[in-house]
Amino acid sequence: MIQAIRWDDGKLHLLDQRHLPHKEEWLTLTTWEEVRDAIRDMVVRGAPAIGVTAAYGMAIAARSGDDLRQAHDGLAASRPTAVNLFWALERIEQLEYHSPEAIEKEAIEIESEDRALCQRIGELGAALVPEHARILTICNTGSLATAGIGTALGIIRTAHVQGKVQHVYSCETRPRQQGLKLTAWELLRDGIPFQSIPDSAAASLMQAGNVDFVVAGADRIAANGDSANKIGTLMLAICAKRFDIPFVIAAPTTTIDSEMQTGAHIPIEERDPSELTEVDRRRIAPEGCPVFNPGFDVTPADLISNIVTELGVFSYPYNFS
Amino acid sequence: MIQAIRWDDGKLHLLDQRHLPHKEEWLTLTTWEEVRDAIRDMVVRGAPAIGVTAAYGMAIAARSGDDLRQAHDGLAASRPTAVNLFWALERIEQLEYHSPEAIEKEAIEIESEDRALCQRIGELGAALVPEHARILTICNTGSLATAGIGTALGIIRTAHVQGKVQHVYSCETRPRQQGLKLTAWELLRDGIPFQSIPDSAAASLMQAGNVDFVVAGADRIAANGDSANKIGTLMLAICAKRFDIPFVIAAPTTTIDSEMQTGAHIPIEERDPSELTEVDRRRIAPEGCPVFNPGFDVTPADLISNIVTELGVFSYPYNFS
Repeated sequence: MIQAIRWDDGKLHLLDQRHLPHKEEWLTLTTWEEVRDAIRDMVVRGAPAIGVTAAYGMAIAARSGDDLRQAHDGLAASRPTAVNLFWALERIEQLEYHSPEAIEKEAIEIESEDRALCQRIGELGAALVPEHARILTICNTGSLATAGIGTALGIIRTAHVQGKVQHVYSCETRPRQQGLKLTAWELLRDGIPFQSIPDSAAASLMQAGNVDFVVAGADRIAANGDSANKIGTLMLAICAKRFDIPFVIAAPTTTIDSEMQTGAHIPIEERDPSELTEVDRRRIAPEGCPVFNPGFDVTPADLISNIVTELGVFSYPYNFS
Repeated sequence: MIQAIRWDDGKLHLLDQRHLPHKEEWLTLTTWEEVRDAIRDMVVRGAPAIGVTAAYGMAIAARSGDDLRQAHDGLAASRPTAVNLFWALERIEQLEYHSPEAIEKEAIEIESEDRALCQRIGELGAALVPEHARILTICNTGSLATAGIGTALGIIRTAHVQGKVQHVYSCETRPRQQGLKLTAWELLRDGIPFQSIPDSAAASLMQAGNVDFVVAGADRIAANGDSANKIGTLMLAICAKRFDIPFVIAAPTTTIDSEMQTGAHIPIEERDPSELTEVDRRRIAPEGCPVFNPGFDVTPADLISNIVTELGVFSYPYNFS
C-alpha cells in the first residue's frame, strides 16, 4: 500500500496523482502557496487526503512565519466543495496556541487519526463481506484518497487480507477515470484480483449473478442517510436493489452533515465539459458539443444497506446521533 | 441528415466513420475485398448499415465478374455478430438470377427498404413521445448506423420535426464512445437541442425528473422481447423502471430472432480490453490492468414499455408472430 502524503521535518512530499498510473513522480512542497496549488491542481485528491494536506500547509505557513489568516483563507479556497478541507483547517484554527510546534503536532495528529479511522472502517466493513465475495466498487477511495488504507477500498483491502475476496470489479468512473487510473493502480500493487469495467457494465455483471457486494465512498451524507458520491453511484445502488445485492457506503463520520436533513438540498457541482469531451487533453467529441457533467449524484438512504463509519455500522432507517 | 452510404454506378462511397467527428473523409470502394475490409475495420458500423454495405459489395463482385461464392463468404466473415449482414447476403443469394444487374437492383432495393423502414419506425415511435419531451438515448442509431434517419434516433428526428422534442440527453457510450463521437455529430448537424452526458449520469437526470422518455436500438431481440443492445442499455432500463419513465426499444423486424425464446441464451461478445484501457490509441490504464469488456447486455422484456418495429408498436408481454 502506497503512502501518498509524507511529512518530513517541515517539507511535504506528495505523490503527483496527475501522472498516475504512468509515472510515479513526487513533489516536495515548502510553502503554503505550493500546497494550495497542489490541492487546486489535483496533485492530491480525495476528501480525507485533501484535509490532511491542508493541515500540513498550515504547519508549513507557521514554520515560515507567514500570515496564518492568509494561509487559512488561501488553502480554504483551493477546492471549494471538499468538506474535510474546511474541517481540517477549522481544527487548526481552534487550537489554543498557534505556535509552529502546536500546528505541526495537530497536522500529524489529523493524519494519524485518518489512518486509524481507515483501519477501523476497514475492519467494521469487512465483517459485512461474505466469503468468496465478488465486490464491485467505483472511483478511488484508497490510499490515494486518504492517509491510510482507504474507506471503501479499505474494506476491500481488509476483506482481502481475511481471505474473503474472490474478485473485485472496479468501475472506470467516467469522466475523470479515477477507477481505471488510480484504483486499478492500487489493486495491481496490492495483488488483489480484479478487472476494470466500463461503468455501464455493472448492471450486466449483477444480472449475471457475478456480484455479491457493492461498496462505495461518500462525499457528503445527510442526516437521514442520503449519500452524495461520485456520479454513477446512484445507478449502482438502483441496480443492486433490483438484483438484491448489498449496497454499502463507507465514510468517516466527518462526512456526515447533520445540518442537512435529506440529500435533496445537497448542491451538485457541475464540472468542466472538457472532462467528458477530452481524454488526457485529446479531443473526443465534435467541436461545439454541449455537455452535462455533474460531479456527484445522491443515493437515497433506502437504497443503502449499510453505512460504515469509524464509529460503527449503521442500517436503514439511519440515525447517526 | 447525412447519407453515409452512396452507390454511384458501380462505385460505393462510404463516409469513413473512424475519423468522425473530427474529419469528414470519404472512401471510394471498387472491389468487394475493399468493401469487406471497410466493414471489418469499422469504416461503416451499425447493423442495418453493414447489411446495405455488404449487399453493394456483392453488386461490385458481380460487376467485376468475381467468384460470387468467394465474395459472399469473404463479406460474411467481416463482422461475425451482425445479424443484418447475413440477412442481406442471404437475400442476394436467394435471387433467381445472379446477373450483375439483378444483384445491383437487389442491393439498391435493400438500401431503399432500410430507408423506408427507418421512416416508418420514426413515425410509429414519435407517436409515443410526449409533448416537450426530454429524451435520453444511448449509442448511435442514426443515419450513420442505417441507410435512413435511423431507428431510435429516427424516432427522435421525427419527434423533433413534429415539435415535440425539448431536449435530448445522449449517453457517451463507453467504451467506444459512439454517442459522444457520432450521435453528437448527427444531432449538431440536425440542430436538435442536446447534451452529451457520461453514461453514469443518466440515473441522476432521471431522479431529478429531467427525463420523460428513454429510447434505444437493439442488436438482437428474442421471441419474448428480451433485447440485446449496447452495454449500458440494461442500466438505463432498470433506472427508467425505478423512476417510472417509459423505456422504448426501436429496431427493424429483421432484428427479431424468433428461434431464440428468451434473451438468456443470446451470446454476449467480449471485446478487446484496449477499447477500455486506451482512448484513441492513448493508454489510460496502468500496464497489466485486467479488463472485462462485454459489448452488449440483455434487457429483460418486462423492463421494456414498447418495442417499435416497422410493422407496429408492440407492448409487454411481447408476441411478434
